[in-house]
Amino acid sequence: MQTEISPLAPQTTPQLPEVPGVIFATAEAGIKYTGREDVLLAVFDPGTQVAGVLTQSKCASAAVDWCRERLKSGGARALVVNSGNANAFTGLKGKLAVELTAQIAAEAVGCAPLEVYLASTGVIGEPLDAEKFRGVLDNCASRLAASPWLGPAKAIMTTDTYPKLSTASVEVDGEKVVISGIAKGSGMIAPDMATMLSFVFTDMPVAEEILQSLLTRHVQKSFNAITVDSDTSTSDSLLAFATGRAKERGVVPITQMDDPRLEKFGTALAQVLFDLAMQVVRDGEGATKLVEVQVEGAQSDTSAKIVAQSIANSPLVKTAIAGEDANWGRVVMAIGKAGQPANRDRISIWFGDILVAQNGERAPDYSEEAASSYMRCQDIHLRVHLGVGEGSATVYTCDLTHGYISINADYRS
Amino acid sequence: MQTEISPLAPQTTPQLPEVPGVIFATAEAGIKYTGREDVLLAVFDPGTQVAGVLTQSKCASAAVDWCRERLKSGGARALVVNSGNANAFTGLKGKLAVELTAQIAAEAVGCAPLEVYLASTGVIGEPLDAEKFRGVLDNCASRLAASPWLGPAKAIMTTDTYPKLSTASVEVDGEKVVISGIAKGSGMIAPDMATMLSFVFTDMPVAEEILQSLLTRHVQKSFNAITVDSDTSTSDSLLAFATGRAKERGVVPITQMDDPRLEKFGTALAQVLFDLAMQVVRDGEGATKLVEVQVEGAQSDTSAKIVAQSIANSPLVKTAIAGEDANWGRVVMAIGKAGQPANRDRISIWFGDILVAQNGERAPDYSEEAASSYMRCQDIHLRVHLGVGEGSATVYTCDLTHGYISINADYRS
Repeated sequence: MQTEISPLAPQTTPQLPEVPGVIFATAEAGIKYTGREDVLLAVFDPGTQVAGVLTQSKCASAAVDWCRERLKSGGARALVVNSGNANAFTGLKGKLAVELTAQIAAEAVGCAPLEVYLASTGVIGEPLDAEKFRGVLDNCASRLAASPWLGPAKAIMTTDTYPKLSTASVEVDGEKVVISGIAKGSGMIAPDMATMLSFVFTDMPVAEEILQSLLTRHVQKSFNAITVDSDTSTSDSLLAFATGRAKERGVVPITQMDDPRLEKFGTALAQVLFDLAMQVVRDGEGATKLVEVQVEGAQSDTSAKIVAQSIANSPLVKTAIAGEDANWGRVVMAIGKAGQPANRDRISIWFGDILVAQNGERAPDYSEEAASSYMRCQDIHLRVHLGVGEGSATVYTCDLTHGYISINADYRS
Repeated sequence: MQTEISPLAPQTTPQLPEVPGVIFATAEAGIKYTGREDVLLAVFDPGTQVAGVLTQSKCASAAVDWCRERLKSGGARALVVNSGNANAFTGLKGKLAVELTAQIAAEAVGCAPLEVYLASTGVIGEPLDAEKFRGVLDNCASRLAASPWLGPAKAIMTTDTYPKLSTASVEVDGEKVVISGIAKGSGMIAPDMATMLSFVFTDMPVAEEILQSLLTRHVQKSFNAITVDSDTSTSDSLLAFATGRAKERGVVPITQMDDPRLEKFGTALAQVLFDLAMQVVRDGEGATKLVEVQVEGAQSDTSAKIVAQSIANSPLVKTAIAGEDANWGRVVMAIGKAGQPANRDRISIWFGDILVAQNGERAPDYSEEAASSYMRCQDIHLRVHLGVGEGSATVYTCDLTHGYISINADYRS
């Protein structure tokens, strides 16, 4: 198992402020790990609005099924997250396990089971023994507090090498409104969805459908723009909870999409989502380099994203980057295999600011030495112009190293 | 660079018989490698029919462009293949290089340049200096012979750890007709096309459009059913040459698709293609295990193939196999991410003969010990039933190991 912190980890762990209307506690339920906390219980004020984006997997986990149903009616009073077991591909047992978990949590916090949101991450295919939450969630409910956020961020980790937290604030109606989030994920990371689990909390009073609309929009350039290994999880869940407590301080609820205050709030939300997504990709299993793949000149933004993903997911591109090899021919290969409209003889490729290929061949001034020197950077920026249109997209990934093999050839056993 | 022969290599190298109407020679042109032969010249009798399947890459090499044009008119008198340089993404220089190569070869063997077929494999993006073929191909033309086939199979290798040859014969009109082929490829291997280069030769008299039809059909379950790393090359080429020389021995040419002799010939051709494709996947970079992924119960054969490829290309599945870990949860993940119709709660999964999952959950009699023991085999058979229809497909791949990283993080420099 991985023990060392990723070399790409942020230098500091942010201190998250309290989010009015959100209290939580963590505990050891002994689901899989020993000697560490593996369950989070968060409790929200009545009236909390909820929105979510869930995995597109055809084999979604029982918790994802549960959340998808809950999101239809809306309203949230509690969130239970466990690590160590994904409760995915567990059939009827899985369904019963989420029902029992919701019931235990509801009794512990005094709400309806249908007001409890759930997420699970870890091994797929092993039945989750929800009886283990009995007593544990009661105990959590007796210790609920509004800080520190490090506990929740740690309790939801699996192969992560560091906890992921982010926060932003925005002034609305003269009052400071908080948006704070946590995330976990380092392998089985690819759109859509790209993270395994992320939870965002705000005291902003905002209507559910508006929160959902913002989340759906901003996930595109954050969690849906990252990939570690092209493998999409059965459990990917992003949930946002808005307690509305800023109302008490005079902040007027946002209930219309044309509310002029929405852009400011949306921008801050996007910032938190992007920051968390980058933290996930920086913790990519075995990662030693962060790679930004920017594709321009495509027929459409969608086409650009497909090409960017083809490059970002190519094992040959990712191993070349790991080897600090300026092998731009592999970028050509990955463009070619994407099958999207591209004018081979007008394609240009840059590594950082270095133009390596132009008009479908090696750039006249190409210097292998300069390109190789650039490849020794920790953050690598690949830019491609396809020469056919105006579409663009950016995808973030990491390199493919011996570390990835070591972690994943020996994860379960 | 890789030096040891793949542990999955065939135990013996077949001795290929002469193919009447085909003579060849190999030489050192010094394209990239030193101290080894890197160019093949094959010469065919007048009247030789040709068919081909070429890469779908949007960044196809200059040689692929050339062959695609040539195949429209048909007829082949010579084939030139070089290793060490792919002549891909080389712009106008690449086009001029193929024209010059064809001209040099045509002069050497006494045919028209448009009757020369070309293939190149190696580094992408470096201009190919076709002047290096001058003299070399003349010299080859003076040494042409009908055997041994080991030379051509070796001359076209790049990161291959062993030469790939296969042969079959079939009795037609009381005479033995030969089909022999060679192939190269071990990385950047994925449908479509799956091999980088393969050339098949027969003395069967068969019309060009019929040969093309057979090739297009049989490539689906051979070269288009294998994947090493999901990366499709710019240079993938499969060419088949039929000299028709068996006519001299009384074999009547096949000119109609309803010719009853076609099935027998097609079956033998399919056998050679499948054998060569398996040799390619067995030489997958860093491979230690051969993996057969069989998907059944899909909505259609096409849908089954997409799911099989999703499993076969998943880094998490491939690393689990490398680690001899019976992590069938990752197979569930790969089914889920394929996005194809599947009934999660009716999916079954087998590892070899061991039923590991049934009706969307772990099989009642599942034994971790038995499954783990099976994973220690060199040949791994994964079978999945999606529970929605009658479609099926099989894809062949290898595991993802430290060897793959070592080879590809240090190939070009």
